[in-house]
Amino acid sequence: MLKFNEKELLANLEGGIALRSDINKIVDQINDEGYSNICWIGIGGTYASSMQAVVHMKERTKIETFYENAASFLTTGNLRVTKDTVVIISSVTGNTQEMVEAVKKCNEIGARVIGFVDRADADLATMCDYLISYPLNEQLKFFMVGDRFMYLAGEFDQYDEFYKQMDDNFAKDVVAVYKNADEFATEFALQHHEDEMHYFVGAGNQWGATYSYAMCYWEEQHWLRTKSIEAQEFFHGMFEIVERDTPVTIYVTEDSQRQLSERVANFIPQICANYTVIDAKDYDMPGISPEFRGALSPFILHAVNDRIDVHIEDLNRHPMEIRRYYRQLKY
Amino acid sequence: MLKFNEKELLANLEGGIALRSDINKIVDQINDEGYSNICWIGIGGTYASSMQAVVHMKERTKIETFYENAASFLTTGNLRVTKDTVVIISSVTGNTQEMVEAVKKCNEIGARVIGFVDRADADLATMCDYLISYPLNEQLKFFMVGDRFMYLAGEFDQYDEFYKQMDDNFAKDVVAVYKNADEFATEFALQHHEDEMHYFVGAGNQWGATYSYAMCYWEEQHWLRTKSIEAQEFFHGMFEIVERDTPVTIYVTEDSQRQLSERVANFIPQICANYTVIDAKDYDMPGISPEFRGALSPFILHAVNDRIDVHIEDLNRHPMEIRRYYRQLKY
Repeated sequence: MLKFNEKELLANLEGGIALRSDINKIVDQINDEGYSNICWIGIGGTYASSMQAVVHMKERTKIETFYENAASFLTTGNLRVTKDTVVIISSVTGNTQEMVEAVKKCNEIGARVIGFVDRADADLATMCDYLISYPLNEQLKFFMVGDRFMYLAGEFDQYDEFYKQMDDNFAKDVVAVYKNADEFATEFALQHHEDEMHYFVGAGNQWGATYSYAMCYWEEQHWLRTKSIEAQEFFHGMFEIVERDTPVTIYVTEDSQRQLSERVANFIPQICANYTVIDAKDYDMPGISPEFRGALSPFILHAVNDRIDVHIEDLNRHPMEIRRYYRQLKY
Repeated sequence: MLKFNEKELLANLEGGIALRSDINKIVDQINDEGYSNICWIGIGGTYASSMQAVVHMKERTKIETFYENAASFLTTGNLRVTKDTVVIISSVTGNTQEMVEAVKKCNEIGARVIGFVDRADADLATMCDYLISYPLNEQLKFFMVGDRFMYLAGEFDQYDEFYKQMDDNFAKDVVAVYKNADEFATEFALQHHEDEMHYFVGAGNQWGATYSYAMCYWEEQHWLRTKSIEAQEFFHGMFEIVERDTPVTIYVTEDSQRQLSERVANFIPQICANYTVIDAKDYDMPGISPEFRGALSPFILHAVNDRIDVHIEDLNRHPMEIRRYYRQLKY
């Protein structure tokens, strides 16, 4: 398989899931101290992951939880963020300007900040009240934080059962999705690597990833034009420009918003002959009970997208690390 | 001026601003009874207006206020919406399926619903606890509701002064913007009415309108392809696909997020020669104090967009009421 290091991937995922004991120590302490609400702050890809953390929690929680874009938090602000708030952030480099400033503002407010900063020596890392440094797995880290808060609030009775299954199966199941998706991903990339424009539709705990896959991968890393749209919004305007040959990809999750994407998937053959449905349900996750699969859709679909990327990169001979403007120019 | 009925527009705006006494009776009563939080529910264009109501309130409020997409509210739901919640909705037809179902759900929860439903005899109208029926002016209605809640919470000291100025000047000032924008709008429409793709950038209290102008006007009513992006997100991926001839329009507001759009406007000449900046600041609003202009950006920019629409419709000989799929097919 092209650009695929199974051993490294498996080890990284196993390390990700193993972060739970560190996360739980932090969350348990904050819960003991008390808190008023939970705020996820991000920008770009981390903004998208924050959206998904909130929709994931909304499935079961009464806790006040919301996301903020770092830049609008720095301008308009949010007076619901106080010294009693728990803020969660994630950053690979630890030096994204807006994130550094946003965490500084949280420090001034006195909110407790849990930071997942991949580089432990970055400025941002030193500014977090609680730091965890481990590469990748952003969405998993966020979900584990949210799940623990909900468990402690008495909102997630099956927490132990769920995480027993996750500890035992998550890493190897996700690796298997990478492998199972590769044939599809190869064909998809062949069909779409030169698209003038590509539409991505998603909902629920995959909406953030739909938005960021379109923007942070196809636009930023492949230089391919895209638009992403929430499945429920598709019928309120956007679909008027879809015609026979318009490339449209619909992500279907297994969470509470599955029906919103299914509605698009069921409708679209009437007006479009160039659509693709990528359904999390089509991928096995052995050892994970059906009632828990909903929370795993983002991981399944992320694996599929990762394989698509490898093939588009190869077909277009466009290395994904190239940036035209990002961190190249002053802005 | 093409398709412009000044007298009718002025009368409609005057009627809109005059709704404040009815709105205040409702809000004052709810405030007396007490409430826990404020939820704006919408879909498509009303979802966008809800986003703007929230960002408008965030400028000064500590009240918990958030928006929900009607369809995700019906699936994932939001346990923060309880019998103590105030829900605000708006609908022209009063029969949008997701909105009818969402308000039904609010009725079951026992939340109080303030509804702006243009047709007083629609199903949706009868389901609201408080009903106001008056055409158009959705954003103004929403802002007046939010402002009154903030005034009663002691968060808007200048409320009386602001609305004195609004009562005296808003309607005629907005009419003047329509007229002052027409020359620009004519040129803009000429330049862009055949764009293969058009990018709209906005932030703050104009982000929702940027999203809906792209989707509910250009895509839905002109059948022109667009993508909209929050100004603060532009630098986190999307800008990599902007080249010399890419059509990009940047809305600049006068609210707290002005600097986010200004940053894009200042940067873009380096990489693009086909951009347009539409700045609310360029339009006079006589009788409105500078410190109040921020809240008026959406009305100024809406007037500019309305004039662009008239000219694109004319140039493309594509009447804006035509729909290819919306309410034409089953979905």
